[in-house]
Amino acid sequence: MKLLRVGTAGAERPALLDADGTLRDLSGIVQDIDGELLADEAALGRVRSAAGSGELPVLDAAGLRVGPPLARIGKIVCIGLNYHDHATETGAEPPAEPVVFFKAADTVVGPYDTVLVPRGSVKTDWEVELAVVIGRTARYLESEEEALAHVAGYAVAHDVSEREFQIERGGTWDKGKNCETFNPLGPWLVTADEVPDPQALGLRLWVNGELRQDGNTSDQIFSVAEVVRYVSQFMTLYPGDVINTGTPAGVALGMPEPKPFLRAGDVVELEIEGLGRQRQEFKNA
Amino acid sequence: MKLLRVGTAGAERPALLDADGTLRDLSGIVQDIDGELLADEAALGRVRSAAGSGELPVLDAAGLRVGPPLARIGKIVCIGLNYHDHATETGAEPPAEPVVFFKAADTVVGPYDTVLVPRGSVKTDWEVELAVVIGRTARYLESEEEALAHVAGYAVAHDVSEREFQIERGGTWDKGKNCETFNPLGPWLVTADEVPDPQALGLRLWVNGELRQDGNTSDQIFSVAEVVRYVSQFMTLYPGDVINTGTPAGVALGMPEPKPFLRAGDVVELEIEGLGRQRQEFKNA
Repeated sequence: MKLLRVGTAGAERPALLDADGTLRDLSGIVQDIDGELLADEAALGRVRSAAGSGELPVLDAAGLRVGPPLARIGKIVCIGLNYHDHATETGAEPPAEPVVFFKAADTVVGPYDTVLVPRGSVKTDWEVELAVVIGRTARYLESEEEALAHVAGYAVAHDVSEREFQIERGGTWDKGKNCETFNPLGPWLVTADEVPDPQALGLRLWVNGELRQDGNTSDQIFSVAEVVRYVSQFMTLYPGDVINTGTPAGVALGMPEPKPFLRAGDVVELEIEGLGRQRQEFKNA
Repeated sequence: MKLLRVGTAGAERPALLDADGTLRDLSGIVQDIDGELLADEAALGRVRSAAGSGELPVLDAAGLRVGPPLARIGKIVCIGLNYHDHATETGAEPPAEPVVFFKAADTVVGPYDTVLVPRGSVKTDWEVELAVVIGRTARYLESEEEALAHVAGYAVAHDVSEREFQIERGGTWDKGKNCETFNPLGPWLVTADEVPDPQALGLRLWVNGELRQDGNTSDQIFSVAEVVRYVSQFMTLYPGDVINTGTPAGVALGMPEPKPFLRAGDVVELEIEGLGRQRQEFKNA
């Protein structure tokens, strides 16, 4: 299923994009799309039946804002340097074990919302990423198979990054990863049953129409399953938590000088095979 | 005011410790103690009036668990190496600007709850910290005075840390800061009007009755006001967000070998002048 949330920011209603591409209203069946729903097999079953029946009310998509496909996100765990080609372009050795940092859930916006270039920023950068949405509480998982059973679904994430804040201002990367609007998510949460192999997804990103990233999750150093298993050794993952699993090569940071960092007026588009497409215009904060 | 939340985990009710040390029920007046309440001047005024009237129902404190004093915490921003003596003991230069890392809100437990030593941990460490609770949305604050006007109150935080996970496993510090139960908070949220000078608070921590940390917020490299102002340049702070402002000297990491890292059965007690006292027993996860 392709689950989404539509409406004005903070007042989105749950919806579903059916097999025919028709937008259907889920608000008569579920309160919202959040960790509670994803952990509730019975409720998910009701959504699935209703979707199959073809009887869900149709929503007029025209002019309707698409919000992030997940409400009440707990934490966003991010994996750094997780593609061979991206580690190479940044001059880093491939890490021996996953690099972990955080984004705050309050950085999440919808897939077509405006993204703000922070005040004082000269190095705002793009990163297309496969986001993994957790559906069951995960502690000390023992195998990759067990790990995948804790994944509710997948989505496109844009891990917007300010490289000066991230790297040149002391401390951890978190300082350059948590600016307001820095995590567009969506358009859909695609349930895991519709993503048979998360290690075979093409990811692409364009800036002002120019292709900048063109990778595949097959190039990940640590697979989705290994990342989920690994992270669960250090922290508990809860339904509604998200893991951004890293970005392939092609970010501004990895390009020759003068690096084309993002400025107000730039438009970034990004997509992952089967998970939909985002488009953001950048403006000054 | 000293605001707190009492009852079983996940079902706490809001309460108040009055000037006489009597526990009073606030559940007839406010839903909970959270960012929404802290941002609502009128609701806070009603609590203040009720507290002054002496007419709030008395709660029997005997046998009542104390939960964290704040519900629905957004993000927890942590400041590293923020005391001169702690930077010295860890062999680090005092940072030129605040070091920022994150704890997930799901690590928060009550002040007397059990803390879990993670599986595989050999370097679980203690850190008493002054926690700052945000009461108003803070973006690009311009002065320290403006910053303090965005602080709703203060609390004791225990920034439990696993040093091997934090320092020796690659990536940022976050890996050693986000284990389950790693952020006891409370017992109270003390409103800012009762903390006239956040830079003059003694902090102490004992392990199994032995005094290990004995510092004062006057030794902070970056003051509370400067930290709030600084962080607001990189991310937006919302009501209900928390900033852990760093720990003074005396952690296990800074001691001679063999360093006395925490193990199951250890008891840690910690207090900050005017903000109350915590006590946790450590158990294996």
